[in-house]
Amino acid sequence: MGIDPGLATIGFAFLSDQDQEPVVIDFGVLTTVAGLNLTERLVIIADDLQHLIDLHKPTEALVESIFFAKNAKTAIDVAHSRGVILQTLAKNGIVVRHITPNQVKLAVCGDGSADKLQIQQFVTRIFNLTQIPQPDDAADALAIAFAGMQVEAGLK
Amino acid sequence: MGIDPGLATIGFAFLSDQDQEPVVIDFGVLTTVAGLNLTERLVIIADDLQHLIDLHKPTEALVESIFFAKNAKTAIDVAHSRGVILQTLAKNGIVVRHITPNQVKLAVCGDGSADKLQIQQFVTRIFNLTQIPQPDDAADALAIAFAGMQVEAGLK
Repeated sequence: MGIDPGLATIGFAFLSDQDQEPVVIDFGVLTTVAGLNLTERLVIIADDLQHLIDLHKPTEALVESIFFAKNAKTAIDVAHSRGVILQTLAKNGIVVRHITPNQVKLAVCGDGSADKLQIQQFVTRIFNLTQIPQPDDAADALAIAFAGMQVEAGLK
Repeated sequence: MGIDPGLATIGFAFLSDQDQEPVVIDFGVLTTVAGLNLTERLVIIADDLQHLIDLHKPTEALVESIFFAKNAKTAIDVAHSRGVILQTLAKNGIVVRHITPNQVKLAVCGDGSADKLQIQQFVTRIFNLTQIPQPDDAADALAIAFAGMQVEAGLK
């Protein structure tokens, strides 16, 4: 499972590697509306993630790290959500690993400064998708899950 | 219930206001050791907080907001923990409110720039404690819970 954490939009992707080659099982986004308060949004994120876990029963999850260069308020909001995500995964017995945005770009595009379009094009091609996954966060989650499989040994 | 969020140390305090005047039920700290990884610490925080909730059955919680001026890494770590705390409280049906460090200082000392010692002396006096609550985080949680009762109407 790959997760692109956020408060309003959380990208997720489930890959299977049973036949050595990663195969897409599911991908998409969980969303919470801005009209709800922070606590309500965190409860929804935990519940929605639990439903996905119950559905796909992942054994391992790659969760992208928070990019500090974003503004502090955004980073703090995302960190609240990311904490709930990590704890929900772990209490389900899922092995959690962290991956930085740069590691993802490097693994999928061979270039730590690749842009969003390059990542979208990569995941569309590598998974033989008929169109670019939308929204961005879903494509990112596919890239995160794929990158996790590639560089698993080096992550903690 | 008052909570001073953190990753290594979380201050907590339970007050009762059945007789109009706040009475201390319990206070202390939850801790996680630095040797554990972030995800393990978040699971422990959720479990330990759940035990406290089961024990004291609070109906309302005041959780201090994150002070942005701290370094970004610390703020992000605390926000992960704070997210888990908010979600754990809310899923137990507890009404969650936020309070800033300045609001706490203003409510207990009448001065938004009061220092830690002033807060410790205040909670020791107001609750007729025989000694200053230790560690700091426990005293802070008492002040947070007390301040929450004082300024409840103005918080969201």
